[in-house]
Amino acid sequence: MKINGKDYKALWRENHTIKFIDQRILPHHFEFFTATTVEDIAFAISDMVVRGAPAIGAAAVYGMAIGQKELEASADLLKSTRPTAFDLFYAVDFMVNQIQQGHDAWEKADVYVADIVDRCRRIGEHGATILKKDMRILTHCNAGALATVDYGTALAPFRVAHHQGKKIFVYADETRPRCQGLLTAWELYHEGIPHALIVDNAAGYYMSKGDIDCVIVGADRIASNGDFANKIGTYEKAVLAHENDIPFYVAAPVSTFDRSLKSGKEIIIEERHQKECTHIQETPVMPSWVNVKNPAFDVTPARFVTGYITEEGIKTAKSLKK
Amino acid sequence: MKINGKDYKALWRENHTIKFIDQRILPHHFEFFTATTVEDIAFAISDMVVRGAPAIGAAAVYGMAIGQKELEASADLLKSTRPTAFDLFYAVDFMVNQIQQGHDAWEKADVYVADIVDRCRRIGEHGATILKKDMRILTHCNAGALATVDYGTALAPFRVAHHQGKKIFVYADETRPRCQGLLTAWELYHEGIPHALIVDNAAGYYMSKGDIDCVIVGADRIASNGDFANKIGTYEKAVLAHENDIPFYVAAPVSTFDRSLKSGKEIIIEERHQKECTHIQETPVMPSWVNVKNPAFDVTPARFVTGYITEEGIKTAKSLKK
Repeated sequence: MKINGKDYKALWRENHTIKFIDQRILPHHFEFFTATTVEDIAFAISDMVVRGAPAIGAAAVYGMAIGQKELEASADLLKSTRPTAFDLFYAVDFMVNQIQQGHDAWEKADVYVADIVDRCRRIGEHGATILKKDMRILTHCNAGALATVDYGTALAPFRVAHHQGKKIFVYADETRPRCQGLLTAWELYHEGIPHALIVDNAAGYYMSKGDIDCVIVGADRIASNGDFANKIGTYEKAVLAHENDIPFYVAAPVSTFDRSLKSGKEIIIEERHQKECTHIQETPVMPSWVNVKNPAFDVTPARFVTGYITEEGIKTAKSLKK
Repeated sequence: MKINGKDYKALWRENHTIKFIDQRILPHHFEFFTATTVEDIAFAISDMVVRGAPAIGAAAVYGMAIGQKELEASADLLKSTRPTAFDLFYAVDFMVNQIQQGHDAWEKADVYVADIVDRCRRIGEHGATILKKDMRILTHCNAGALATVDYGTALAPFRVAHHQGKKIFVYADETRPRCQGLLTAWELYHEGIPHALIVDNAAGYYMSKGDIDCVIVGADRIASNGDFANKIGTYEKAVLAHENDIPFYVAAPVSTFDRSLKSGKEIIIEERHQKECTHIQETPVMPSWVNVKNPAFDVTPARFVTGYITEEGIKTAKSLKK
């Protein structure tokens, strides 16, 4: 991704040190977080220095490379950080296998991360075939380069379509409580893609007005039947797109598909701390007596999904079953 | 309404001075705004010292009493403050008529305000008949005592049901951008009604989980066919309630019904300043380069409304036509 005209990734390694763009303070401050221990990596994941399922997977493989000498303890620690991110489990198990088979952990981790980036690039190419000239697309949360090391999942088709000269316009949901829509706006701003940020409440309004032609979101975990977990509010936007006859796409690498889950009913929803709602950055925006409930994810049934944009092409819920 | 155990109203008069609870700084600070000129009243309405259609109407009648010597100029100034609030126009026109007929403006304004409060009390009594023991109800924005001088519209049934011992639980949408859900939480907190604040994105999640039995919202303006304008995001919650077979009620006095409008398509949507989104209170929560679109209201079609809770009883879209 371009930032101030320079190429960056959400995280990268410098020898045995992992550097992250610190997403906790974005887009207000552009700074880096440095990890040299498996505990640093676990902290980066659980405190959301890094976020987004594929980027968490990338952090985890490097975490396993750092912690390869205490294989089981490292795997347990990393897996305990974010219960909803399937890529995390996939990445940790992949590394345990590679290390047990005697492969070079750092080399395998690099291959894993390069593979994520390549898959996102291909998601962008497939997704861009959906996007026509002057289309106005809504996205929720940040399924961008920040969430996937580079390119993004939901944002990859926007990058490709923009470079193809299609003159798209993106509506970015603010995505309370953590306001990851600001990260999406930040990425689009630096790429020069026209866009506007809207509060989550306004998405339905623009859909009902006929101002949105298509919705593309990411996914944290997709069950065998096509039900998927993603950032809280995704379900709302899917129901509203359905009501307004607007195509609704999920962009995700095949590693996000969890064949062990029959349906979305089996997906555990993570409840996070009240402070995510009561504070923005470190500023309190609600008095301390306010009682808050804060579910981090929701599950959207497959019947609301027009298609799944993967690195292997665009699939439907029906074609997933094969 | 009770605040720290003491009775208050959203606004009241002391001779020819109007006092408001300053809602711009609630629930962080509990302070008063004093108006002695028609310009003060216009400022209180446009800057949202006072908000909510009925309370704006109450402010407007007192504004007309203050400005009765320059009748036309006062009416024009007050009407220009908030284009979506039908009660404002109703209140100003009512006062112009009364004053032109030679009635005592202050006396008529008092009667108008007392009548609002009485209508809200009756909305509460009718609405409470819907609410059964242990019901969990979602509300959006603040259609409480703060918005209606006393009792509220959507919140009036909660107050009555709570005093009837029905042990209800209220989910209050945060209601970005201005977070009026905090005002709702503040009112419920002071009344001792169990509740939780949730981000707007989480309402669909709780509906799909079966945790919400009923939705009650207010309205700024209701067309002849039952379509209604209310705070941005109301349309989203109505579509989601419909999808999840949850009854959805609009609580509003009959003065909110605008017979001159055939349908919601004729309602003008007010776009407000970006700063409402980019700042919370006076704290910036977004960088200055972020491009924001900020529609203040949306229109919900009548087909999503189970019933209209008015001071004259509960009506359906069909019965409205009579």
